Amino acid sequence: MPSSMIWRRGMHTLERLKAARIPEDVITQGQERVIDASLTLIREKAKLKGAVVRALGGAVATSSLLGIPLGHNSSFLQGPAFAPPLIREAMWCGSTNSTTEEGKMIDDPLVMADVGDLPVQEMRDTGVSDDRLMEVVSESVKIVMEEAPLRPLILGGDHSISYPVVRAVSEKLGGPVDVLHLDAHPDIYDAFEGNKYSHASSFARIMEGGYARRLLQVGIRSINKEGREQGKRFGVEQYEMRTFSKDRHFLENLKLGEGVKGVYISIDVDCLDPAFAHGVSHFEPGGLSFRDVLNILHNLQGDIVAADVVEYNPQRDTADGMTAMVAAKFARELTAKMSK
Amino acid sequence: MPSSMIWRRGMHTLERLKAARIPEDVITQGQERVIDASLTLIREKAKLKGAVVRALGGAVATSSLLGIPLGHNSSFLQGPAFAPPLIREAMWCGSTNSTTEEGKMIDDPLVMADVGDLPVQEMRDTGVSDDRLMEVVSESVKIVMEEAPLRPLILGGDHSISYPVVRAVSEKLGGPVDVLHLDAHPDIYDAFEGNKYSHASSFARIMEGGYARRLLQVGIRSINKEGREQGKRFGVEQYEMRTFSKDRHFLENLKLGEGVKGVYISIDVDCLDPAFAHGVSHFEPGGLSFRDVLNILHNLQGDIVAADVVEYNPQRDTADGMTAMVAAKFARELTAKMSK
Amino acid sequence: MPSSMIWRRGMHTLERLKAARIPEDVITQGQERVIDASLTLIREKAKLKGAVVRALGGAVATSSLLGIPLGHNSSFLQGPAFAPPLIREAMWCGSTNSTTEEGKMIDDPLVMADVGDLPVQEMRDTGVSDDRLMEVVSESVKIVMEEAPLRPLILGGDHSISYPVVRAVSEKLGGPVDVLHLDAHPDIYDAFEGNKYSHASSFARIMEGGYARRLLQVGIRSINKEGREQGKRFGVEQYEMRTFSKDRHFLENLKLGEGVKGVYISIDVDCLDPAFAHGVSHFEPGGLSFRDVLNILHNLQGDIVAADVVEYNPQRDTADGMTAMVAAKFARELTAKMSK
Amino acid sequence: MPSSMIWRRGMHTLERLKAARIPEDVITQGQERVIDASLTLIREKAKLKGAVVRALGGAVATSSLLGIPLGHNSSFLQGPAFAPPLIREAMWCGSTNSTTEEGKMIDDPLVMADVGDLPVQEMRDTGVSDDRLMEVVSESVKIVMEEAPLRPLILGGDHSISYPVVRAVSEKLGGPVDVLHLDAHPDIYDAFEGNKYSHASSFARIMEGGYARRLLQVGIRSINKEGREQGKRFGVEQYEMRTFSKDRHFLENLKLGEGVKGVYISIDVDCLDPAFAHGVSHFEPGGLSFRDVLNILHNLQGDIVAADVVEYNPQRDTADGMTAMVAAKFARELTAKMSK
Amino acid sequence: MPSSMIWRRGMHTLERLKAARIPEDVITQGQERVIDASLTLIREKAKLKGAVVRALGGAVATSSLLGIPLGHNSSFLQGPAFAPPLIREAMWCGSTNSTTEEGKMIDDPLVMADVGDLPVQEMRDTGVSDDRLMEVVSESVKIVMEEAPLRPLILGGDHSISYPVVRAVSEKLGGPVDVLHLDAHPDIYDAFEGNKYSHASSFARIMEGGYARRLLQVGIRSINKEGREQGKRFGVEQYEMRTFSKDRHFLENLKLGEGVKGVYISIDVDCLDPAFAHGVSHFEPGGLSFRDVLNILHNLQGDIVAADVVEYNPQRDTADGMTAMVAAKFARELTAKMSK
Amino acid sequence: MPSSMIWRRGMHTLERLKAARIPEDVITQGQERVIDASLTLIREKAKLKGAVVRALGGAVATSSLLGIPLGHNSSFLQGPAFAPPLIREAMWCGSTNSTTEEGKMIDDPLVMADVGDLPVQEMRDTGVSDDRLMEVVSESVKIVMEEAPLRPLILGGDHSISYPVVRAVSEKLGGPVDVLHLDAHPDIYDAFEGNKYSHASSFARIMEGGYARRLLQVGIRSINKEGREQGKRFGVEQYEMRTFSKDRHFLENLKLGEGVKGVYISIDVDCLDPAFAHGVSHFEPGGLSFRDVLNILHNLQGDIVAADVVEYNPQRDTADGMTAMVAAKFARELTAKMSK
Repeated sequence: MPSSMIWRRGMHTLERLKAARIPEDVITQGQERVIDASLTLIREKAKLKGAVVRALGGAVATSSLLGIPLGHNSSFLQGPAFAPPLIREAMWCGSTNSTTEEGKMIDDPLVMADVGDLPVQEMRDTGVSDDRLMEVVSESVKIVMEEAPLRPLILGGDHSISYPVVRAVSEKLGGPVDVLHLDAHPDIYDAFEGNKYSHASSFARIMEGGYARRLLQVGIRSINKEGREQGKRFGVEQYEMRTFSKDRHFLENLKLGEGVKGVYISIDVDCLDPAFAHGVSHFEPGGLSFRDVLNILHNLQGDIVAADVVEYNPQRDTADGMTAMVAAKFARELTAKMSK
Repeated sequence: MPSSMIWRRGMHTLERLKAARIPEDVITQGQERVIDASLTLIREKAKLKGAVVRALGGAVATSSLLGIPLGHNSSFLQGPAFAPPLIREAMWCGSTNSTTEEGKMIDDPLVMADVGDLPVQEMRDTGVSDDRLMEVVSESVKIVMEEAPLRPLILGGDHSISYPVVRAVSEKLGGPVDVLHLDAHPDIYDAFEGNKYSHASSFARIMEGGYARRLLQVGIRSINKEGREQGKRFGVEQYEMRTFSKDRHFLENLKLGEGVKGVYISIDVDCLDPAFAHGVSHFEPGGLSFRDVLNILHNLQGDIVAADVVEYNPQRDTADGMTAMVAAKFARELTAKMSK
Repeated sequence: MPSSMIWRRGMHTLERLKAARIPEDVITQGQERVIDASLTLIREKAKLKGAVVRALGGAVATSSLLGIPLGHNSSFLQGPAFAPPLIREAMWCGSTNSTTEEGKMIDDPLVMADVGDLPVQEMRDTGVSDDRLMEVVSESVKIVMEEAPLRPLILGGDHSISYPVVRAVSEKLGGPVDVLHLDAHPDIYDAFEGNKYSHASSFARIMEGGYARRLLQVGIRSINKEGREQGKRFGVEQYEMRTFSKDRHFLENLKLGEGVKGVYISIDVDCLDPAFAHGVSHFEPGGLSFRDVLNILHNLQGDIVAADVVEYNPQRDTADGMTAMVAAKFARELTAKMSK
Repeated sequence: MPSSMIWRRGMHTLERLKAARIPEDVITQGQERVIDASLTLIREKAKLKGAVVRALGGAVATSSLLGIPLGHNSSFLQGPAFAPPLIREAMWCGSTNSTTEEGKMIDDPLVMADVGDLPVQEMRDTGVSDDRLMEVVSESVKIVMEEAPLRPLILGGDHSISYPVVRAVSEKLGGPVDVLHLDAHPDIYDAFEGNKYSHASSFARIMEGGYARRLLQVGIRSINKEGREQGKRFGVEQYEMRTFSKDRHFLENLKLGEGVKGVYISIDVDCLDPAFAHGVSHFEPGGLSFRDVLNILHNLQGDIVAADVVEYNPQRDTADGMTAMVAAKFARELTAKMSK
Repeated sequence: MPSSMIWRRGMHTLERLKAARIPEDVITQGQERVIDASLTLIREKAKLKGAVVRALGGAVATSSLLGIPLGHNSSFLQGPAFAPPLIREAMWCGSTNSTTEEGKMIDDPLVMADVGDLPVQEMRDTGVSDDRLMEVVSESVKIVMEEAPLRPLILGGDHSISYPVVRAVSEKLGGPVDVLHLDAHPDIYDAFEGNKYSHASSFARIMEGGYARRLLQVGIRSINKEGREQGKRFGVEQYEMRTFSKDRHFLENLKLGEGVKGVYISIDVDCLDPAFAHGVSHFEPGGLSFRDVLNILHNLQGDIVAADVVEYNPQRDTADGMTAMVAAKFARELTAKMSK
Repeated sequence: MPSSMIWRRGMHTLERLKAARIPEDVITQGQERVIDASLTLIREKAKLKGAVVRALGGAVATSSLLGIPLGHNSSFLQGPAFAPPLIREAMWCGSTNSTTEEGKMIDDPLVMADVGDLPVQEMRDTGVSDDRLMEVVSESVKIVMEEAPLRPLILGGDHSISYPVVRAVSEKLGGPVDVLHLDAHPDIYDAFEGNKYSHASSFARIMEGGYARRLLQVGIRSINKEGREQGKRFGVEQYEMRTFSKDRHFLENLKLGEGVKGVYISIDVDCLDPAFAHGVSHFEPGGLSFRDVLNILHNLQGDIVAADVVEYNPQRDTADGMTAMVAAKFARELTAKMSK
């Protein structure tokens, strides 16, 4: 089903009302109370999960799922708003076991926790602005990080969320990180179609903010003049698919994050060729195979402080959810990589 | 994708841990704090939406959507846990306008509100028991009812939720209601496969509790000996499809709810023939047409105090979400019927 | 998947070889031994199922499933060759219970037996001629009838099988039967595309052979001049969809089989509008609803001596097998009607 | 695939160029030459088909298919631009024969002709304005009508084409016609989203122009205040689905076109319930069955001077083209009704 | 939808009539007028597009799309007749931008033009013979080439069109070209199933006619004895998938067209493994990846004088048109390669 | 359609009856007669096919298809029970020719024979135990081997069948074989979910029984601690996908079977990445490409004495059976490899 204007409409309705007939503070105060309740929900879940880890003897790092069901900053389709619960279901799907390729067990509470989904649509329905919403996303990430040893593993949502997430990670850790970004697109427009929070602009925001030292983009095959110029401007290392067979050796031997606060990995599911990932909004043939991505991940050296899996679009998936399994395996292998 | 064991597994993990190595109160207190946060979220949304209605001059009755994304009490597939956001999207889908068949406008805040989804999976993931969870569902319904003139229009979820919902409605109003129940199945087993909260047992619970005076079941075509005996035991008026052509006139002229606290309508999407509703867990050919249901609803006389639309299973829907539109139109027409 | 030429090719290969280099009796004798083994398999299953019924105290009539996976006499697609195992699976599908609409239980051995599938493809692969194959189909039906009280409920296969089945029923019972035939097409061409065994010619063969006294055709909406002329020639009662709203009362009050050996019911799944039955080879809009068919069946008076459900084409079904459920429910309700 | 902006973009490119760097007459003259060639193509085909009919002895009326592959005036999806070749293929599909329900044969050149598709996209790609394009559509219809006894049977395209088609029919015949309009929507907005040629405004244009005397709308179930007010303003007879069971008898006994130039029938495929017609842009549950429509058509008395089948959207159809068969059968039965 | 016999039937109808009752010249002259109009349409479009390029200052080479919607020379399915409009839509699809991988912009009129689709079905419907039709295809290609700097980029259609296209290119340029042919099959039968224009025989015709000097076939994995013998006979360089890992280096460093009139590239979408291209008639596992093809194309040295993308079958594509995007990206990258 | 409990239920019914009211020998003797008839069917087919080969002059080795439609030992879905007839259809599909990649012709009776499907469901329906059923599978394999030069090429069915097949091969040849096993999973649990015949335990049984000397597992990417420990215990050579790029050279140059009775190849279709094989029960991203498997097979040196293709699940396949073509091509290329 093509994404409708649901969330926008909810927002616009309240905005229209606000302007016309309702005291502004009725709405503003209501919004803030809904935001508070939303963050409290994440906080209470994080506290419980942190307590469990500590009661079991603790760990150096435990990945913690945090869903951000936000899709309205997509330029084309908005299905990623429905993704987190479906990725989570696929992670536990009875068709496979709970061991990752390198032997971690995701049903071990010291390896993986889950603090649930931020109630994004509940907030948006009250007319919360995008500025405020992005702050709230950042806040939710920090809440998870407060409960050491939990480290955020974000389930998107569209790619716009990487900006508030990386910002929060960097702010919380007190400095920039290195970012490994797998994607068909550089997502580095200054402001796509006038939206500075667009899913096509998140990495412009990240670089402007100084939240990343190095940014490596891998899988790129839909890039125009602005994309290349912005890349140059920000010193991005762009590895296009055109030269992947030459770059492969380098990319399968990465060492990142030294001298900064660690490594952030952002996987846009459309880094894969659409043959491997039907459930994405943008079909861009000529991409990576699933194994290509795993080879890069498994061999990466670095301290993974947070990560995301974004742009899975269930409304484009096959009837039996094959791409949910793809997104889920990315999340599982990231968990294995992050936890220790 | 076949429903996995995700939610059960989350629960079992914590139960196992509890038994073994973690102080029980760490988990129990954490669960209660997560439940509190969940209900606070619904409460704050209800308060804001109630305040908006009042600021606009008030209404006698405003329907308020409340999603209950709960699917684990299904006997066969568990996709209804993913339904509420997709029904909501379809309600606002750009392919149709915002006017119902009888001329109500769902974008009028006096006609329809929305308090979002109860974070069911966030609670279940902490190991909350089904007994407790059903109490929380009831509590969320009461929270909406406290904000007059909001009346709950529940988006399921599987049919197990009708029990805690009707219980809450009856308790809050102080007496039984009449229930119009559209379904292929009577859902009146004493305890299906040993689960008293099964989606196949909810109406046994409702009748036992005295929450309904009359219970009319329409669309029935999968009923066995126990179903008919339980029907007799509880004085249920069962209208089977075998005789629908004879019963049609009666059913298109119902007058309900007099002498009790009002009328509750529960629409299981599988009351429809699967030709009209692909997205259901149980294909039971020989059902109602969509127009058959609307004819019954439009002509029903009575004060609708609450309603639900349940058992929409997006994992069985067509790629373009046709059944989401069906569930959405049920919700839209119920809104028209409830609001005044 | 478009039907391939597989079975024909197998046959042609052996025919070519026979002509050229292999003594004819090597092949002919081999074919007969394979046929013997195929019929022995059905016979042994029928004997066991008959013995079970008798050991349990017997019955007046027990329906017995017999699959005839034959699809090569279709003019368009040949998927019905794969149907019987999928209909059988749907009959037992966990999404519904084992009670029919009128209260019979299909897991009661006195109500329903199953003698499995005739190994049609195993025989055809050896190059058996269609003349011989049709004799074998007839023989398999008689084998079931020898084990009283078993009565054959045939799972097709394309509609060509109705000819050898009705022939066997009539020969075994010693006289004609009345036939109720639900279909979009009259299947009464003299020889469709030169094939006298075509699925579009079976009822011409039945009428020529004198195996039916009355033939009522219901649901007809694709009929040409030859179809109407053949109908007149054989005295067929053709009820076209054009006048169904007028004929409905008559058809819902049928009394058949008196003065002859009983009633045979042949349900071509495409009697239904394709909205209700996607999994058919011929989409012919404007057909019956599933309930229309049940209303005719439930109210029919007569002694049902045998029946078939044909032309379900799994290669045209929806991914989750909705039409398998439709064909299965036809078989279930026929079982309820036949058994006593 | 979601409709892209292809045609608009093609147009905009040339418009932009025109403004900037290219002499306007280069483009304007080129456009007119392309238009001329397009109409010449239709004219030559109509002449040949007319000559064939006359050479065979002539007829009172021969339906002639004319495809108008235009989809850009849809508000939601634009797939109908691809419909005509697929409807035509389904009309000749090997799964059915060439006889209509009432016995006409569509392979008889006296019954049905075909003048092919107007090259709409070839014209639009040159930047032709919508005003000009609508004139060209009208012109193509008149070209067919010049070749008596050919009568236009239009294969859409979105519903916006009914305006230029009915205009042409009325202008050519010299007076208004009666219009039977089957649709889920009244398509009578003054100007939907600012587009006076919108597929949601065509019947406002027809009524304003005086091209229709009576306008009967059947199947309506998505109508808002403006729709009802415009209906009143133009004296439209709106038969809503809410009351169809009461209106059925009247609608199955229509007599139209007396005292005017004849009857025009416009079938929007979405008049059907989406269960019967998956391949439409707007899912609006609660519609007509296919047989409901045929009952109205078969019993209608009047001289059908032209007709259209519109809004079939192949991009929403099932994989095996079930709705193509539905649109095709509408065209076949209209052919039977028109020809004589 | 299985390919019907539509086009053949149209033809046969007129042929039958011709023989029987209609003066032959009525039909013959009508056919020629329809052909003239069809070619005029292409000519006028080409003239306009050529004028635009020249008015903008000209180019060395501008690719020009020309659709040939012809599918009846396929041996198995005929869906490619519907392909060109869908490929064109996908080329402009809002999900991607207008820049190719190497930085060309397809919305620059100096880079890419479009002369629309040859009205193949409009001609065939009049009974035009295949001999004549193939001449017309050649003629349409020459018409484009007359408007320098336009160079034909053909959107098929089945592979039979490559013969008349390459013939026209060679004749127009006055000598043979080198052909790079990507395909699962060699398409070099002398006459497949008796049809010399079969899509499986086009390269036999090309080689016989001397239109190609070198013919390199890449991706081959369905080849029989005749295919290999014909290959030898014509001196074809056949690179089978069996040895692709060894041949890869050679194929990624091709230099073609020197000493002849240039290079022609023919991409049959089924050169790809079906994992990458669902929408093809012939599933032949074990093919190229999309990136494999791009690596060959991007590194090819030579002057590309014309090209085609054929055998995309929308009737086998996924619901959301993934293979349309694949065919479109081939066309986009070929445009980048051709234009200068 | 989710796999139902059909076969189990059939069995349980008879078991329950046996316990209660029916003399045990009635059932036991009936079972044995059904088993005898089933094996006789295979024997007669094998005899005929063997006689044909000998009459044509004989061969060193002729592959012979034998279908084992058994799916109830799967842990997740049971669709492989329906696979053999669909693989067979795809092997002869009109979309490709009958020549394998290396030039063998599958329509040559000296290259490939076919003895049909073992009537597994007919036997199970009588309540035959799994112990007995596995013996029967072994017996059917030996029956084929008795008809030299036929060598069994098994079409599964789930992977549980490899145990009785390899056992039979080894027993018949009088010693162990080397096994090349392509799979996502090692299938080497001691007893998965308590079922020693589970499709996840077959290779534990094979190794325990001493039926294999070397066992090479290729494609592995879902393996847990038990899988690795069992591997070590039995001396299995496990080649995981994690290191496939390093192992590729070794695996593309295998020489097996020397000093033992030959080589057995077992291909689980899910060894492929799900991008290449949608129709499997277990989606495990990161697998082999189809060409990877062929490269291993084509280059393997050894005497292939038998083989299987298992775990194709038609209920997960695409609508047009793409994975049937994949399984069929595996079977075709294995035939080419086995025959001589």
